[in-house]
Amino acid sequence: MLTLKNPLQRWARGLAVVVGIGLLASAPAHARHDHLASWTDGPAKKAIVEFVRKTTDKASPDYVAPAERIATFDNDGTLWAEQPMYVQAMFALDRVKALAPQHPEWQTQEPFASVLKGDLKGALAGGDKALLEIMMATHAGMTTDEFQQIVKDWIATATNPVTKRPYTEMVYQPMVELLAYLRAHGYKTFIVSGGGIEFMRPWAEQAYGVPPEQVVGSSIKTRFEMRDGKAVLVRLPEVNFIDDGEGKPIGINQNIGHRPIAAFGNSDGDRQMLEYATTGTGARFGMLVLHDDKAREFAYGPATGLPEGHIGTFSQALFDEAQKRGWTVVSMKNDWKTIFPAKK
Amino acid sequence: MLTLKNPLQRWARGLAVVVGIGLLASAPAHARHDHLASWTDGPAKKAIVEFVRKTTDKASPDYVAPAERIATFDNDGTLWAEQPMYVQAMFALDRVKALAPQHPEWQTQEPFASVLKGDLKGALAGGDKALLEIMMATHAGMTTDEFQQIVKDWIATATNPVTKRPYTEMVYQPMVELLAYLRAHGYKTFIVSGGGIEFMRPWAEQAYGVPPEQVVGSSIKTRFEMRDGKAVLVRLPEVNFIDDGEGKPIGINQNIGHRPIAAFGNSDGDRQMLEYATTGTGARFGMLVLHDDKAREFAYGPATGLPEGHIGTFSQALFDEAQKRGWTVVSMKNDWKTIFPAKK
Repeated sequence: MLTLKNPLQRWARGLAVVVGIGLLASAPAHARHDHLASWTDGPAKKAIVEFVRKTTDKASPDYVAPAERIATFDNDGTLWAEQPMYVQAMFALDRVKALAPQHPEWQTQEPFASVLKGDLKGALAGGDKALLEIMMATHAGMTTDEFQQIVKDWIATATNPVTKRPYTEMVYQPMVELLAYLRAHGYKTFIVSGGGIEFMRPWAEQAYGVPPEQVVGSSIKTRFEMRDGKAVLVRLPEVNFIDDGEGKPIGINQNIGHRPIAAFGNSDGDRQMLEYATTGTGARFGMLVLHDDKAREFAYGPATGLPEGHIGTFSQALFDEAQKRGWTVVSMKNDWKTIFPAKK
Repeated sequence: MLTLKNPLQRWARGLAVVVGIGLLASAPAHARHDHLASWTDGPAKKAIVEFVRKTTDKASPDYVAPAERIATFDNDGTLWAEQPMYVQAMFALDRVKALAPQHPEWQTQEPFASVLKGDLKGALAGGDKALLEIMMATHAGMTTDEFQQIVKDWIATATNPVTKRPYTEMVYQPMVELLAYLRAHGYKTFIVSGGGIEFMRPWAEQAYGVPPEQVVGSSIKTRFEMRDGKAVLVRLPEVNFIDDGEGKPIGINQNIGHRPIAAFGNSDGDRQMLEYATTGTGARFGMLVLHDDKAREFAYGPATGLPEGHIGTFSQALFDEAQKRGWTVVSMKNDWKTIFPAKK
């Protein structure tokens, strides 16, 4: 939030308000209300507004044609909460429980036995191999149409174990506003997440206004089949693409085919995406969300002075690179008036 | 073209014109001119117009919400000419010649030696392996930005060896109109081609009005790198994905995430895409372009009674499936008034 330390600042702010009112009289309808109402008037909001102004004002030397106004957003920890565990991991654990009656062998077979006993630590003792087994057992074997319905049904009722709120109400209100603000200014907004592309698509349009064709993510392989006269794609227990770290620019190139001019993330897995977006020619914008608000959300990551966790690491090295490259670091505590949307 | 064989038909046509004029008076601006002016008033155009009407008229039981109005188009032989050889193959051969000074070993090394001597038959004697070698030598080793520029420079001057016209003037005028017609009715149009995704993106927007993010195609792998402080993707000599046959629905799912409600192709490689699109629920549309106009374009494929070639096979089995599933088969000879746009 902007703190008005001295009379000069107060005067400047008063002037800005007066000039603002003057401008509003002739502004287009969509500019008449504050698209970014949940953002405090701090440096992050100022940086966003200035970037959008200079890239959309035809008189600006930094003007960007609408076709190139591509903005990419990480999902977990950037658009919605990723604590106490990635939402997709919660989905996988719930699916193990739901599928257990069809798999009596899971009662004694790890990592499933531990999951069914509610012993998460035991389940994850098998490391990446155990995690992959859980993912494949719960994400493969059905058609893409069936999986879409499974995700829709789950997300309609599942809730965050800490807040007890539905996951779709654990989206960050300021980021939802930012997505809409960019679109209102001719930007095309994409999700580029390490999460599963087909896990996000069923609900991303309703939650963020981002349609399925603008979601990029990790994926497993599929196989084409005709079943009862209907063409289907069967999800196979084989990784196709991991959209994280260096995979993000690769996934962006594969699915979008533009170098974005703006990119938004929150962790080390977003570093290469921000580098890819911000080292192109012309006006560029990089932003990282810092989870420093223990009271209203969660606080984690070395950049907050807290010990490193396994989820959404925001390392000191990333923080240093942000400073060096001029990326905006958003303090959830200081830059956001509210974190989550009002309860429905 | 519609042939008016008897007075009754003439009368019906006259009536249609009168009714048409009556309707135009109250039609919205975009409906006031014929979007499909290069199509004769035959069954193909009628089928298109009826499909668009029933999927966009809110009172229709077949109404489809804009978000689901996804139409996918094959490129080679569907949107532009693929004879006497795929355009991308012509590009590869030209690139071998352009790169030869940097590769003195190619003077004696097959398949390059044959290409440089202008002996195409000799070059292709090595089969798929030779073809792959030519593709990788010409399509990999540079950054994606560099490749984009190479394609742009090439397509600006290259011409079809038979017609001597630029390739971008060898697009099918009726299909360009169809793309625009669908978009004018809230459809999102995608290219889904066996051709290289990064070969098509640099010119598809200008030629078809299809932006890079709506192009799906075959691809090679890329690697993320920082070069002189700039993040780049380096194209590797390794196949990533073949977007043909069963690969088309898989590519559609990966890049678009919707089952299309309309699909357009011209060969056996498009069969699964049309099956995928047309076996979904609700109104569906499948169309295949038949190359039966030797005088104005090229005639090829068993479905025309001609011997099978290596390019764009339209088999009798595909023709039979089209009949069975109610897909519209476009006769270039009878359904299209003009084939190519006017010379520039």
